[in-house]
Order: sequence, then structure tokens, then C-alpha cells
Amino acid sequence: MRLPEMRVLGVDPGLTRCGLGAVEGRPGAPLSLVAVGVVRTPADDDIGSRLVAIERGIEQWLDDVRPDSVAVERVFAQHNVRTVMGTAQAAAVAIVCAARRGLPVALHTPSEVKAAITGSGTAGKQQVGTMVTRLLRLDAMPRPADAADALALAICHVWRGGAQNRLADALARARGRTP
Amino acid sequence: MRLPEMRVLGVDPGLTRCGLGAVEGRPGAPLSLVAVGVVRTPADDDIGSRLVAIERGIEQWLDDVRPDSVAVERVFAQHNVRTVMGTAQAAAVAIVCAARRGLPVALHTPSEVKAAITGSGTAGKQQVGTMVTRLLRLDAMPRPADAADALALAICHVWRGGAQNRLADALARARGRTP
Repeated sequence: MRLPEMRVLGVDPGLTRCGLGAVEGRPGAPLSLVAVGVVRTPADDDIGSRLVAIERGIEQWLDDVRPDSVAVERVFAQHNVRTVMGTAQAAAVAIVCAARRGLPVALHTPSEVKAAITGSGTAGKQQVGTMVTRLLRLDAMPRPADAADALALAICHVWRGGAQNRLADALARARGRTP
Repeated sequence: MRLPEMRVLGVDPGLTRCGLGAVEGRPGAPLSLVAVGVVRTPADDDIGSRLVAIERGIEQWLDDVRPDSVAVERVFAQHNVRTVMGTAQAAAVAIVCAARRGLPVALHTPSEVKAAITGSGTAGKQQVGTMVTRLLRLDAMPRPADAADALALAICHVWRGGAQNRLADALARARGRTP
């Protein structure tokens, strides 16, 4: 069965830089870039203003890109303790924006994305960027890295055929983590 | 200078039970209860539906209670690793709902709240509940504990005179934490 083309918006969540990247394609066929960029918020703004600015930015992206689904990086408490709360909160905003529109939301871990794009779950940022550039036939690597990571998330999701990761979610819940 | 009466909505964030409690008063005067309750979401729903349900619940509370400001528990990555991501995401939704309406949002740590209500930053849930019951002159302790904790947050915020914790926020940022 040949899956239909799907347009996916990937979100690499963050308060200072929230990476956004949209691709179109289907498993086993060349992918195309739709749009890539970042939403930035000033580090000295209060958390409320920052989250509202991220919400506004993502809403604009959803209006412009009109994706079929949204892929957000799954945030774990174990990693990067210094910034993880802001990352989780930016992710929450992205998830709410998508879910409010009835769009399917998928969560992929960084290692799932790296493995999908490079073949190795422990690949570095440079390697992920190189593969994103190659897979989308771009002239240069998307900058900053958050933008490239958002595209990697979207590519990963297209290649997984838009599966909702129900199993992964169920497992994460069983372990007591919030998917 | 006598501060004016203020109405504060406290939010004890959580995906399964998000505690909400509103009080009215000013520093140095008796407080009164406005409303208390919880918004619940089913643990087996996907994260998008849960966050949207929490958003809807909080919007309803803001419409009904019409607070002057909102106090949300400050979530730290160090504590309760198993549930902290969901807590952070529910907190993000509460912060966005308030900030979108232009309401001031204050973040208080659990130990700040306990110290304000009981005199000890390490007081247990029962002690906090007992003091909330006494301070609001209630016949019984509000249940579940999340609802009592939300009232404690709101009381703490009234007693701090609605200060925005700019210093605490600046310190948290300097330490690399998201306030």
C-alpha cells in the first residue's frame, strides 16, 4: 500500500529559540522542504510573555503551513536539568496549539529522530544537520541547529508513516512518565 | 499604606488533578474563600487532549472567578522526576491562559508557600491543609490535597502583597532555571 503524501510540522521546543520545520512527503519517496525557521523570545521577558509569544508564533506557523500533523520532541526530565522546564513548557504550548485544531500530535525522542535520520541514535548535531540538508536537497545546512532539528523531527515522522506512537505513549505512561 | 483587596487564583498544576483555589483579601486582614476545586483529565487520554481539557477548565475558572492575578506553583526539574514533565506542562497552560488575558502571573515554590502558611518551609500536606482551613474559616479541610494546595498558593500570594517576584525570577534565570 502506498501511503499518501503528508505535510508535517516539526517543533524543537525551547523558550529562547523554538525551532520549526515543515516537510512534505511519504515513506520511501523524496521529501521536500515546505518552510523552516525559529520563534525567539527574549531571555529577560517574564515566563508568561514568553509562552504567549511562542503560542502566537506557532499559531502563525500553523496558519501558514497548514500541516496534516505536528511532531514535537519528547522532553525527558532526566536530561539538561538546567533548561528542561522551559523546554517542557514550550513543548506544552506547541502540543496545545496543534491539539486545539484537532491535528494529530506525535512525540519523538531525540534518539528516535537521530536513528531515523542518520542510522545512529547517538549521532551528533552536525551529522543530523548534514543528513537533513542531503535528504531535503538543500544548498546549505539550515541554521540555527534548532531549525535543522525541527526538520529532522518532521522527516522522522513522515518516515514513520505518521504513526501516533500509541505503543510508545502507552509504555511511557506505564513507566509513570508523561508522554 | 493599606493595600487594596485583591482576588487571587492559585493553581497547583497537574495533568491528572489540577488544583484551583481562589481567595480574596489583603495582607494583614482576614481572607475569604471565593471558590475551590480541581480540573481532572483521564490518565489514558493522549497528552494533547489532556492539555486542551486543562486549558478549557482554567479558562472557565478565569471567566467565573475574574481574579486580579494568578499564582502558579513553580516547578523544579529536581523533584518528582516521574511526574514533573506533566506538572510543568500543566503549569505552562495555566501561565499562558493568565498571560493571554494580561493578568499578572506569579510563581511560588512549594517551600515559599509552606513557609507563608505554616511558618515552616518543610511543613507536611496535613499541616498546610489545617492552616488553609483555619485561615479561611472553613468547616472542613478542602479535598483533594491539590485543591487545598491551590488555596495555599493564593493565600501566600495575597500575603506577599501580589509582588511579582521579580527578584526571585531574576535569580532563577541567573541560575539557568526557567522561572
